[in-house]
Formats: sequence, C-alpha cells, structure tokens
Amino acid sequence: MATASGNMLIAQSGGPSMVINQSLVGAILEAKQQKSIKRIFGARHGIKGILAKDLIDLKKETVANLERVANTPASALGSVRKKPTADDCAQIFDVLRAYDVRYFFYIGGNDSAETAHIINEHARAASFEMRCFHIPKTIDNDLRENDHTPGFGSAAKFVACAVMGDDLDNRALPGVKIDVVMGRHAGFLTAASALARQNENDGPHLIYLPERPFSLDQFVADVDRVYTKLGRCVIAVSEGISDEEHVPIASKFIKEVDAHGNVQLSGSGALGDLLAGEIKAKTKISRVRADTFGYLQRSFPGMISEVDAKEAREVGIRAVKQSMKGDIDGSIAIRRKPGEKYQIYYERVPLRSVARDTREVPKSHINKAGNDVTAAFIKYARPIVGNLPLPGHFKGVKVPVA
Amino acid sequence: MATASGNMLIAQSGGPSMVINQSLVGAILEAKQQKSIKRIFGARHGIKGILAKDLIDLKKETVANLERVANTPASALGSVRKKPTADDCAQIFDVLRAYDVRYFFYIGGNDSAETAHIINEHARAASFEMRCFHIPKTIDNDLRENDHTPGFGSAAKFVACAVMGDDLDNRALPGVKIDVVMGRHAGFLTAASALARQNENDGPHLIYLPERPFSLDQFVADVDRVYTKLGRCVIAVSEGISDEEHVPIASKFIKEVDAHGNVQLSGSGALGDLLAGEIKAKTKISRVRADTFGYLQRSFPGMISEVDAKEAREVGIRAVKQSMKGDIDGSIAIRRKPGEKYQIYYERVPLRSVARDTREVPKSHINKAGNDVTAAFIKYARPIVGNLPLPGHFKGVKVPVA
Repeated sequence: MATASGNMLIAQSGGPSMVINQSLVGAILEAKQQKSIKRIFGARHGIKGILAKDLIDLKKETVANLERVANTPASALGSVRKKPTADDCAQIFDVLRAYDVRYFFYIGGNDSAETAHIINEHARAASFEMRCFHIPKTIDNDLRENDHTPGFGSAAKFVACAVMGDDLDNRALPGVKIDVVMGRHAGFLTAASALARQNENDGPHLIYLPERPFSLDQFVADVDRVYTKLGRCVIAVSEGISDEEHVPIASKFIKEVDAHGNVQLSGSGALGDLLAGEIKAKTKISRVRADTFGYLQRSFPGMISEVDAKEAREVGIRAVKQSMKGDIDGSIAIRRKPGEKYQIYYERVPLRSVARDTREVPKSHINKAGNDVTAAFIKYARPIVGNLPLPGHFKGVKVPVA
Repeated sequence: MATASGNMLIAQSGGPSMVINQSLVGAILEAKQQKSIKRIFGARHGIKGILAKDLIDLKKETVANLERVANTPASALGSVRKKPTADDCAQIFDVLRAYDVRYFFYIGGNDSAETAHIINEHARAASFEMRCFHIPKTIDNDLRENDHTPGFGSAAKFVACAVMGDDLDNRALPGVKIDVVMGRHAGFLTAASALARQNENDGPHLIYLPERPFSLDQFVADVDRVYTKLGRCVIAVSEGISDEEHVPIASKFIKEVDAHGNVQLSGSGALGDLLAGEIKAKTKISRVRADTFGYLQRSFPGMISEVDAKEAREVGIRAVKQSMKGDIDGSIAIRRKPGEKYQIYYERVPLRSVARDTREVPKSHINKAGNDVTAAFIKYARPIVGNLPLPGHFKGVKVPVA
C-alpha cells in the first residue's frame, strides 16, 4: 500500500522519565521532514486529551524550543494513567478519523502498546488507513522484545549516584542504611544500584529484587553478617519485594494509623521503616536509617545517561521513518548485538509482542543467595548507564600511636 | 605572641555535606605551605578519632588525590555525632599535647565550634600554646555570624532541582505532591525550593518552614485553594514543622505500629504520609503523594553549587592563614556586602559567637500567611545556589476542535 497522506498525532502515557521528551521531539522533528505528514498534533495527557479533543499544534513550536523540551524531564505533553475501555478505543478512533490522523504515535510502556494495538485493530476494521506506532518508554526496563528501554539508563544513573552518595555518607557516619528503589515487579532499577561500587567494600552491600521471594529473617541475618564484618551496611531494596506467595512485604506487615484512628496513609516510606524496625528489634545495631527515593528517580533534572538520551531520540525518529514504509505498524525495539563492545540496533516488532506482559530481571543477573546481582548484570547495565562520578578516598597512612 | 611551631590536627564533625571536603583539602594544601606546621594529622571520625588516637598522616596524600577527595561528597575523614563531655575535652587536650599539636581545626556546625572553644580553654588554662579554629559547615545554614554557611548552597541546589523535577512530574500527572525537606529547626533548605520556580504557576505552590507554627487545618485549606485554581499542587514542607507549642507535627500526630505491635519505626516518611492522609480525608482530591528527600540532600554526588564549593575551599584556607597570625583563635565567618551585586568577605569571629545557639530564617524572608517565602529570600539565596536547569515547555497553540 502506498504511503498515506494526512495528519499525525502523538501522545505520551504512563510515568514520566528523564528522556521521554527526547522520543517526542525526535518524532516531531522527523515528521516535519516527511511530505506525507501534513499537520502534527500533540494530545494533552495521552488518550484523555484525544477523547477531550485537547490537542496542540506541534508545527507551531520552534526548533530551539523543541530542543529545550527534549532536554527537560517528565512528559511535556502531559501524561495519563488511564487504561482505555473498549468503548474508549472506539471513541478514540472516531476522533483520530475526524482529524484525518493517518499517523498515530503513542509513547509509553506495555499498556500504551496495548492501547495502540487496539486502536490499530479499529482502524483496520473500518478500512481506515492509519499507521499506529508505539514508542517504548519505561524506567522499569520491563518491556518484552527490548534489550533495555529508553528511560531506564537515566533513572538507573540516578539510583547508582544516589546509592554512591549514600555509601559515602554511611562511611562518614556508620550504621545501617536502607534505600528503597522504584520497581514493583521488575528489579532492574534496584539492581542498577550495584553500579555505585568502585572499590572493595563499597556499598550497596546487599540488593533485594522483587524477582526473588523476600524473607525478613534472611534479611536480618544478611545485614547482621555485613555489619559485623564492616561496621556498616548499605542496602538497596525494591519497593516491590514480596514473600513466597507473591504478597508484597509492604502490604503484608505494615499497619499504619494516624491519631484519628484512620488507616489512610499512603505509606511512601513505610517499607523502609518496617525493614529498619526489624533490624533494630532483632540485632544490636542502633543506628538504622531508611530513605525512599521516590519520584526523583524519574524526574530529576540534569540526571541524564547520554546513551539513554540518544537512544530515546532515535526510537522516536525511527518510529516515524518506519511509518513511511507502507502498511506496517508496530513498536521500535532496542536490541543488542552479542560481543564485548556495546552495539545496539533497532527493530520493528509487532505491537502485540510488547503489549500486556512484561519481563523481569533474568535469573543469570541475580546471585544464588538472592541478595545481590551478578557480574553479568553489571556488564549488561554499565554501557546503558554511562559514566558515573569517581569518588576520592584518602590513602590513609596511619600515624603510630603516641 | 610569635607563631608556634609544631603539628596540625584537623577533623570533621556532624552531618556530611557536598563540599565539606573542599574545606578539609583547602586547609591541608594551605598548611603544606606553612613552615610552622610540621606534620598534618587527620583524625578519623572527629573527636572519636582523637580520643582513640586514630590518626592518619595527611602529608602522605598526593595533591591529585586531595583534589579528588575535595570533589567528593560526605566527610572523607569520617564524621561523628558525639558531643564531648568535660572529661572528654580534657582527654582530647591531653592527646593533642601528646602529639605536639599546635594547630587544631574542627570543621562542623555550632556543636563543633563549642567543642573547639572548650578545647581552646583547656589549652589556655595549661598555658599550652595552640591555635584552635572552627571551620564552618552546615547544610542547615543556621550558624550565627554567617550570611550563609558552606554546604548550604549545594544542598539547596539539590532541593531546588528535586522540586523542579517534581513540579514537571506533577504537571504531567496532576495531583497533590508533598516533598519533605531536611531542617529540623531552620527552614533555609525548605525555603530554597522556591528557586525551582521560573514561570507563573510553577511549583512549589506552598512552602512551610519550622519558623512558623503549622496548622493542619490551614494547610488543608491552602492546598484545596491551590488545587481548585490549578488542578494540581506541589508543596515543600520542612521535616521540623511544629505547632504553636513547638511540638513537632511528626511526633504529635503519628503513631506507627508494625504487625508485631511494636512502635519502633524510624518514621522516615511518616510526616509526608500524615499530611497526604489529611488531604485525602478532608478534601475531594484523590491523587495525593508524598516523598521525603532524605540523605540525598547532603550527599548526592555531582550536585554542587560552584559558589558553595569555592567558598568552602576558602574558609579552610583562611582558617590556616589566620592561625599563623599569632595568639588568636576563632571561626571563619562568611559575610555579605550590601548592594545588588553578590560580594562576600571573610571575617574571623570568636569561637563562642558561633557556638551553641543557632539562627533561623529571618522574618523578612517568610510571607505573612506563613505558606511561602518572600522576594527577599529569593534575592538572598539565588547567588549562593547558582545556576539551575532551565526546563522547556511547549508554547502549546491549541488546535480548534474538529
């Protein structure tokens, strides 16, 4: 089928990332080069903006401003958590048709791929020629078909830097420090804390991912062992750690009430506090602290992995380029070539193949005891995250006691 | 009195900062230039290391390594929270005398100045000629005599960047977001969140400092008003906010228990969760989240205010230079010249004048309603914090509804 001529619509979905605007701007700039694409609409807050016909004209943006947006964290068009119903999808398709949208791009994770897939089915059923593309984005790094996903590298860099700083802090004022990292089902971000290590005995000393059942008793024993050896212990733990029955530790053990007797706290720091409490109760360690990194992991300005930013831009460009190639749809996946050198390539994959299900940290990346990552993970993650700060330490020649 | 000849000892105390090692390295490099200073000892973990005679030889460190240490966050010699007893001080003095220490430098906040003062008194009483200098450091910015303190600018930059990113995140996925910032008694760091604002309606939309009594009812009313107007609300709140009777809100309203019935949680996220719970219970707003920034504020690598790093280096250098000027002791204070242009100068002040008591955010820096800072604060803080990222936003020309 020949290239369709008409308008383009692009939108962003799900949690923000440091580089999702690179994909957006990459797609816009590429689309401006394509004669088949007439107008370029941006929907505010994903499918919510399509349903409400809340669109902006992206051809009215200067290149200089587009570049500023590209370098800004979070979703410049606004995002949405809404998963559309079948009715929503039918209505979305009607709006797209009303605006003569022949090129539809949705930037997001597996749910966004699912949405693009369903809308694509509507277009096919109505014999309305429209290219539907999903552009990958998730700091969780859990999209199938992909070696890694845009957004992960920069969030992982934040986590590695944060744990590195925390480890320096913990050297200065020793004790046990627990850092709770994002990722309810996939532990990639928590695993990335391992990149903070540069010298022997650098933290994190223990790493717990949601891919392995978490045992409080084993956790306390692990911490006690590290603390006995080093006099301190830095721990990275995923917010999603769960027990043998897949019940999240956070929901299982914690009961919070405020002074009015209401159990209504969001519990943002609850898991860290629970784990800290266990250590205090069951060991002789007195200085135990916990931090939960929170939204900073996905939106801290200036914390960019250059490789990640470049790849995020590229998947946006490639999606538009692929959409020019006739009657095809899909998602742009990042694949890695085997070998020592970091080399990737991009491949169009069916929308369905990245929709719904997600992937987890592979077994080969987690150590046997389930309290650390392996060298294979470090090798996998390092080139995606890029350069990290190199802390200095005193050589520390001891002065003989006077 | 002539310049004494002998050894030097330097140590670090209190919470780490991003630039405390600049002060340390500034003092070491300056001391290496001084003929009166023979050996340069670094005590591990402040006075704890002096008492234990746990010293390292800082003349054995290469300049290249010293510079790497200077650019590393947290306290490279190790720190301590210990406030010495009278007996400790007598013992510390004995150790200093045993090592022929004629130049003693203690980097830290008001408690460290107090320690230096007491040790100085011991030396005087024993007619042991020793220069005692305090080198200022505190991210809380609460030392008397100082316009601002080394460590504050960089921590303030972290807070401003974090809230800026969070505001972008909140634009993308609207709701109420509460960010809890360090500073139990002084609100300078929380106030610095205001530097994140660059355009109208940028967050933080509300700022609460410990200097003003905090009312939960007023807080909920404030949030509701902002949310009604903007459809979202970003709030920076100091961990130390207290009621009319100076009782911290965190300790007053929160009661946490784990599944075993133990009330032993450290509650790192408790204040944020309490405030979020209040908004959910008393307004119709459903999406309410809270983050507590935690230790990242004082130890995140690479997050440096250049002005802060330069001044931190300078107070270390100046302390050593001053100690060469005969029988004087003191602390190096940073003063600001009046006028539009940011100009500072350094002044030696008595140890006693920065010890014990601290200072708070001045009244002129807090708005009448007690829920924001004034333009005077912005003018005060901006040059200390330095340049911040400039987020890009779409001009956003609306597409007419089809």
